[in-house]
Amino acid sequence: MKKIILTLIAISAASISFSAAAQFAKPEDAVKYRKAAFQVTAAHFGRMGAMASGKAPFDAKIAAENAEIVANMVKLPWHAFGEGTETAETKAKPEVWKQNAKFKEAADKLQAESVKLLAAAKTGKEDAFKTAFAATGAACKACHDDFKNK
Amino acid sequence: MKKIILTLIAISAASISFSAAAQFAKPEDAVKYRKAAFQVTAAHFGRMGAMASGKAPFDAKIAAENAEIVANMVKLPWHAFGEGTETAETKAKPEVWKQNAKFKEAADKLQAESVKLLAAAKTGKEDAFKTAFAATGAACKACHDDFKNK
Repeated sequence: MKKIILTLIAISAASISFSAAAQFAKPEDAVKYRKAAFQVTAAHFGRMGAMASGKAPFDAKIAAENAEIVANMVKLPWHAFGEGTETAETKAKPEVWKQNAKFKEAADKLQAESVKLLAAAKTGKEDAFKTAFAATGAACKACHDDFKNK
Repeated sequence: MKKIILTLIAISAASISFSAAAQFAKPEDAVKYRKAAFQVTAAHFGRMGAMASGKAPFDAKIAAENAEIVANMVKLPWHAFGEGTETAETKAKPEVWKQNAKFKEAADKLQAESVKLLAAAKTGKEDAFKTAFAATGAACKACHDDFKNK
């Protein structure tokens, strides 16, 4: 029974890794893709940051527009962290693959907070936006601390 | 009267250019941003291309997922082609700024075709998908031919 389960896990892991790898022709392509996705995310997150920190006046429309883009963008990079993409030029720590369940949890947390941020931005209430922005930023930071080299 | 109109146009152009530039701290940031946005777009467009060309079997769900990402992504890069961003390391031709109305038209065309592609993908009909994919690809190519160096 144990053997059957282990075999099933191995088949399942192999197919996940195959399907993720199949999305990119080369590991370098996956690395470029995830960097690009994070770069676009960071630009829009930064625009909200200016409002959250009071450097720019709060504008509900701009907040919602950027929050929507961020909520969409943060769905993307994770499938580009497949097996074999840890060897290409990357700031990702080996922990991404060694503690993959924890990494996935961190990615899920960011996505969940981004959805809440979009909802908060849509209320048009500055306080709600600021609170949700801080929680999303904390999710970014927690993942960077554990899984990204400086 | 002509002078007033010209002054208004100048003010309006200055404020557009200010607002676009204000989104990025440095011209280089705008260039990196738009390259990143196109890179993410290309990855998802390429996945549809494999199905459109028959290299991969048609899968309506995968087609719709990728078409949705592309339709969202192609909204993004244009605000990063502001005045002053033609000097940084870029493959954009000077025509982007010299023939800006034509460039904007090409950008609008791509966005319109991407919306149609998403609708076609959602029908689940392979023929409709292939036709819309070809039209979207033609919109990519037309803009690259006129506005992007190889």
